[in-house]
Amino acid sequence: MRNDGRSNDELRFVRMEKDYIKHAEGSVLVTVGDTKVICTASIEDRVPHFMRNQGKGWITAEYSMLPRATEQRTVREASRGKVTGRTMEIQRLIGRALRSVVDLPKMGERTLWIDCDVIQADGGTRTASITGAFVAMVLAFVGLIEAKTIKKMPVKDFLAATSVGIDNSEGPILDLNYAEDANANVDMNIVMTGSGEFVELQGTGEEATFSYAELQSLLKLGSKGVGELIELQKEVLGEWAKLINEAEDEK
Amino acid sequence: MRNDGRSNDELRFVRMEKDYIKHAEGSVLVTVGDTKVICTASIEDRVPHFMRNQGKGWITAEYSMLPRATEQRTVREASRGKVTGRTMEIQRLIGRALRSVVDLPKMGERTLWIDCDVIQADGGTRTASITGAFVAMVLAFVGLIEAKTIKKMPVKDFLAATSVGIDNSEGPILDLNYAEDANANVDMNIVMTGSGEFVELQGTGEEATFSYAELQSLLKLGSKGVGELIELQKEVLGEWAKLINEAEDEK
Amino acid sequence: MRNDGRSNDELRFVRMEKDYIKHAEGSVLVTVGDTKVICTASIEDRVPHFMRNQGKGWITAEYSMLPRATEQRTVREASRGKVTGRTMEIQRLIGRALRSVVDLPKMGERTLWIDCDVIQADGGTRTASITGAFVAMVLAFVGLIEAKTIKKMPVKDFLAATSVGIDNSEGPILDLNYAEDANANVDMNIVMTGSGEFVELQGTGEEATFSYAELQSLLKLGSKGVGELIELQKEVLGEWAKLINEAEDEK
Amino acid sequence: MRNDGRSNDELRFVRMEKDYIKHAEGSVLVTVGDTKVICTASIEDRVPHFMRNQGKGWITAEYSMLPRATEQRTVREASRGKVTGRTMEIQRLIGRALRSVVDLPKMGERTLWIDCDVIQADGGTRTASITGAFVAMVLAFVGLIEAKTIKKMPVKDFLAATSVGIDNSEGPILDLNYAEDANANVDMNIVMTGSGEFVELQGTGEEATFSYAELQSLLKLGSKGVGELIELQKEVLGEWAKLINEAEDEK
Amino acid sequence: MRNDGRSNDELRFVRMEKDYIKHAEGSVLVTVGDTKVICTASIEDRVPHFMRNQGKGWITAEYSMLPRATEQRTVREASRGKVTGRTMEIQRLIGRALRSVVDLPKMGERTLWIDCDVIQADGGTRTASITGAFVAMVLAFVGLIEAKTIKKMPVKDFLAATSVGIDNSEGPILDLNYAEDANANVDMNIVMTGSGEFVELQGTGEEATFSYAELQSLLKLGSKGVGELIELQKEVLGEWAKLINEAEDEK
Amino acid sequence: MRNDGRSNDELRFVRMEKDYIKHAEGSVLVTVGDTKVICTASIEDRVPHFMRNQGKGWITAEYSMLPRATEQRTVREASRGKVTGRTMEIQRLIGRALRSVVDLPKMGERTLWIDCDVIQADGGTRTASITGAFVAMVLAFVGLIEAKTIKKMPVKDFLAATSVGIDNSEGPILDLNYAEDANANVDMNIVMTGSGEFVELQGTGEEATFSYAELQSLLKLGSKGVGELIELQKEVLGEWAKLINEAEDEK
Repeated sequence: MRNDGRSNDELRFVRMEKDYIKHAEGSVLVTVGDTKVICTASIEDRVPHFMRNQGKGWITAEYSMLPRATEQRTVREASRGKVTGRTMEIQRLIGRALRSVVDLPKMGERTLWIDCDVIQADGGTRTASITGAFVAMVLAFVGLIEAKTIKKMPVKDFLAATSVGIDNSEGPILDLNYAEDANANVDMNIVMTGSGEFVELQGTGEEATFSYAELQSLLKLGSKGVGELIELQKEVLGEWAKLINEAEDEK
Repeated sequence: MRNDGRSNDELRFVRMEKDYIKHAEGSVLVTVGDTKVICTASIEDRVPHFMRNQGKGWITAEYSMLPRATEQRTVREASRGKVTGRTMEIQRLIGRALRSVVDLPKMGERTLWIDCDVIQADGGTRTASITGAFVAMVLAFVGLIEAKTIKKMPVKDFLAATSVGIDNSEGPILDLNYAEDANANVDMNIVMTGSGEFVELQGTGEEATFSYAELQSLLKLGSKGVGELIELQKEVLGEWAKLINEAEDEK
Repeated sequence: MRNDGRSNDELRFVRMEKDYIKHAEGSVLVTVGDTKVICTASIEDRVPHFMRNQGKGWITAEYSMLPRATEQRTVREASRGKVTGRTMEIQRLIGRALRSVVDLPKMGERTLWIDCDVIQADGGTRTASITGAFVAMVLAFVGLIEAKTIKKMPVKDFLAATSVGIDNSEGPILDLNYAEDANANVDMNIVMTGSGEFVELQGTGEEATFSYAELQSLLKLGSKGVGELIELQKEVLGEWAKLINEAEDEK
Repeated sequence: MRNDGRSNDELRFVRMEKDYIKHAEGSVLVTVGDTKVICTASIEDRVPHFMRNQGKGWITAEYSMLPRATEQRTVREASRGKVTGRTMEIQRLIGRALRSVVDLPKMGERTLWIDCDVIQADGGTRTASITGAFVAMVLAFVGLIEAKTIKKMPVKDFLAATSVGIDNSEGPILDLNYAEDANANVDMNIVMTGSGEFVELQGTGEEATFSYAELQSLLKLGSKGVGELIELQKEVLGEWAKLINEAEDEK
Repeated sequence: MRNDGRSNDELRFVRMEKDYIKHAEGSVLVTVGDTKVICTASIEDRVPHFMRNQGKGWITAEYSMLPRATEQRTVREASRGKVTGRTMEIQRLIGRALRSVVDLPKMGERTLWIDCDVIQADGGTRTASITGAFVAMVLAFVGLIEAKTIKKMPVKDFLAATSVGIDNSEGPILDLNYAEDANANVDMNIVMTGSGEFVELQGTGEEATFSYAELQSLLKLGSKGVGELIELQKEVLGEWAKLINEAEDEK
Repeated sequence: MRNDGRSNDELRFVRMEKDYIKHAEGSVLVTVGDTKVICTASIEDRVPHFMRNQGKGWITAEYSMLPRATEQRTVREASRGKVTGRTMEIQRLIGRALRSVVDLPKMGERTLWIDCDVIQADGGTRTASITGAFVAMVLAFVGLIEAKTIKKMPVKDFLAATSVGIDNSEGPILDLNYAEDANANVDMNIVMTGSGEFVELQGTGEEATFSYAELQSLLKLGSKGVGELIELQKEVLGEWAKLINEAEDEK
């Protein structure tokens, strides 16, 4: 039995509370078990220097944890004067993942800033961030459509992420909490689209390895989990979810 | 009339939600109008180098805003690699204010880390931080008492803070929201104790000055506001509030 | 008796030596007891980015101490690669104080850089900096008037600063030296104008509090001290002091 | 046809020149096509703080590119004062990969520092770094064995890495050079052991996605490539390669 | 006898391998004994801000050592987040030395970036860098001439550098290796031109001094060494060496 | 004629005002023409990590310029968060020069911190710093002798520095002011001892070269200048100057 009584292919309780921050163009408080992340999407009316005059937009992400999101207080990155490697890796992952389902030219020469701030951490913060940031992003684009700044939803497909891993006693399991993650031999983050394609696959055997057969089991679990998360995103987005299906049809 | 319909000596709606973050020894989500701050208190079992072997504790505070706490997205301090002057000033203020009502030797050689993270800002974030941090601090000490790590509540008196200012048309007003703050000629932060003593007084005429008579009006308003905030702190703390009164009596 | 024989409402010996640095548009070596600060004012023919095209000027200040200005050698901020919170707080205070008595549009789109470098410290360095920087600023503007770059003195009123505090045995005292400052329960910096208005009031009870009655005594002492400092500024400026009175009359 | 005439499942020319740097405990100049990386392994007789007194060793890696390793000169990380996110990600990957095949307790309380410095870049620098660093690491351990500092080879299995990707016209291809990498929709780095297990799998669709079927083709190509690289490592190590097989047998 | 059997006025074995890095406009691997430095020259089609619109070019240099170029691994400057004083001193020296023999207006408004990366160090890395960088620079200019971007070789004279020093037992010696350098009382770097003029002279008695007579011996040895290095540069450059002589004649 | 009427071998007016800063163990305000530098010497009762348990002391120097020491205001190094290459070069030079005339074991395991802060600059700030720092250092050691902390003066010889250069029209000149320095083709800093030995020689032809004959003229001028500076140091030190001669005799 898993430490919180779930079956091996079961997600934790997930909730996405939209418009959580009043100033942001799009925002979501995403809860996955005891992991809680505030995701905001901000629109800036210009692109970074290296993207100028290409007639397309850009999406970039930043990620951080409040010092006491963790069991032990973590030193603030602002205080140590630099961002850790782990944070950079996660920021790059979130940005890349979101860009993979967006038609950048349809955004116009704008930057979408995604901020994922973990206020409470219990494993899976990077995948929860992607799942929540997707919704915040769609909400920001809905705002642009309603303001008639852009004509069509630039988002081509749904996108969500979860983690899978191999537990010593349980074998392959879905959506690891912190205690499970600390114990697992293999840890894999899977980012997939609504149409079941892969966007990112990051599997790591920390001081361990994994076989081809184990990989197949992990992929199957991940695919199931992402599918369920996307159903929740559709519920949260309601009518607006259709804008994405329309964008897809057009492809 | 003020922009949100309040009378000049009226606080905004205030709420303090305790135990908001599961990992922290003490935590509060403090809401003052549209300003929301997560305050956590963390206990570390040692003091900074310059305090060692003096038989007393230390209290230090850090303050930050999520990038999208503000109307316009603010660049993350971790990204720019350094903490701004404004942040440093606020951190120093919060720490100093809390230390003024704590009997440091009673804490033992421990550090209390206060983290105030503004998740939504609408003026008065530093004073809301102090008011909320006080409660988080008391909760952390209650934990130490319950664990029999320390014997008595080291907190000697209640402490809360608010802002007052002089509005061009309204004159002296209490608890400025962001729009009021941006318009005010004079802005003053007042930190006071439960027994009505001053702890900090920071009055500033940004490109303006203020008279002795105006100062007296501001002090009166501030005193009223802090009194009401302390009543709310007592409600939130319930039975534990008495531990502070007892500590006071003993003095 | 105070440790240097002064009465409780007595300033230390004060001197302001003008044109101390040959390259600067305005400069003063200000001496307050054993505290010595070189204040320079530099004119730059543009304003910072956020101020452009608003038809007004800007005043900004930097403050530093030589490593051996202090009893114990202090590590250079350039060596540690960042400015301390204390320095930032002081820099912001000096800039804000000076701006409060300047008619920024009359400066034209220029920046006035104030540099206050403490070469010897014995308490009250931030208030001595403000008092000296005011004179350096006026001298720089006199230069602009003489060069017919601007027409009128943009300075509307005199400005000086001093510290007051509550000593354990002496009670309220004026212009604390370092030893007094280290002993005082309460420390307040007061910045006032020639017409007796307040510009900044920063009162702090480090691990202590102060009553309303004590506050009134401190304000009275501070007001006396600032009045005397402004008399000295007028002497140093000689004929040029009248330019400020004229600017005031015009108001 | 691929831009350099290779078939889709063909590696570039690979060479590993051992003992390239006279001071290092182990060193290799690894050449993969036009990509050239100096890999050194340095032994330090202590472990980082967080690893002390656990009776095992640690392996950490640093990666950098000379400014003119690239087509356009890249700004030096030392000059910009911080390491980029890309570099951090690669450093973490190399360290993690190497640790997965090492029996850390057998190293004793030592740190193995791996430095991978790219002197010429033409795609695949991170995978070439892993392949070369593995050999440098083994050479350093051989030195410890010959000096009788440790008894047995702590390396449990061979390890090499390559990249695979999906080209618009060619479909899945092995070992992408820079031009191919810039064109590919999907890019995957595969790190595997001598016994055919996975250690790391990092697949990314930059502004694209990939299907389950495509993933299977990529895994097959990667597995073939890594197998060939490990054969080359065995040749370079000669007799010493057997020490690893022995370590394996013992498992 | 010197530790490697050389006579006191004998250089170590010197080799310059040109076009070592395929991407660079000019490149050389320079070997002086066991010291090996990759020198590249990169052309950028603009000059730094402070040089704009002056109708002339600029030459700037960066220098670094791979962490394991040294006997003991050196911490990477990128990791510590700043360049050491030693590195800055060397970078400034290399740039200044090269600029002294270049007719900057003939370069046009371009920047020549010189990168000297020491891959193995055994004393004299800064002088080897200058000697090698000179050749890389000439090769880059040859490229500009061949592309008809500039008309004439902007290099007016040859330039090379070596070190001399005073050994406790041997007296004045030429081209010190690391062990000799660590033992020498006096260490002098000499940069000279093909016509025997001095460009830089940096003599230092670390915890020692040197007499006028000793200085004369050092100058003589240095002059001999530089002369031999320039002969080697001429061999390496072959026909292109004449472009420099022609530039000289024209003067 | 030189721009200030001096003959080619004439120093500017030089003054050294001792005990300028009350807190420092040794201090001097050195004036050379319009160049003014505050030099302080601070004693710390331990040595840096790399010097421990060797039974000898260490001398280290820091150098800085006030922002408005220069014609145009210079950005503060603390504000830009790093020390420039020029500053590092000068700091290293001052420390090295002073160490060359000190018998480090006689200091005991102490560090002497030299701080040279330029309050007004008109050329020759690094050489004025060395000349003044020497006196501040001697004063600090006199204090240690008088306190009977050490027995003998650890300073073995006098030390002073000046600059020489080659002016286009005047030829070789001594002690260049800023305008002369900006015009000179060749600039050389010479540090010498009381017994006429060289300690440092740093000659640079910025975009120029110099001949052997010119070098000899420069050395002669520098030798004359340093001799005169040392006479002034002896006057300033008075009786204490003899402590250095005695130290010398003993050698």
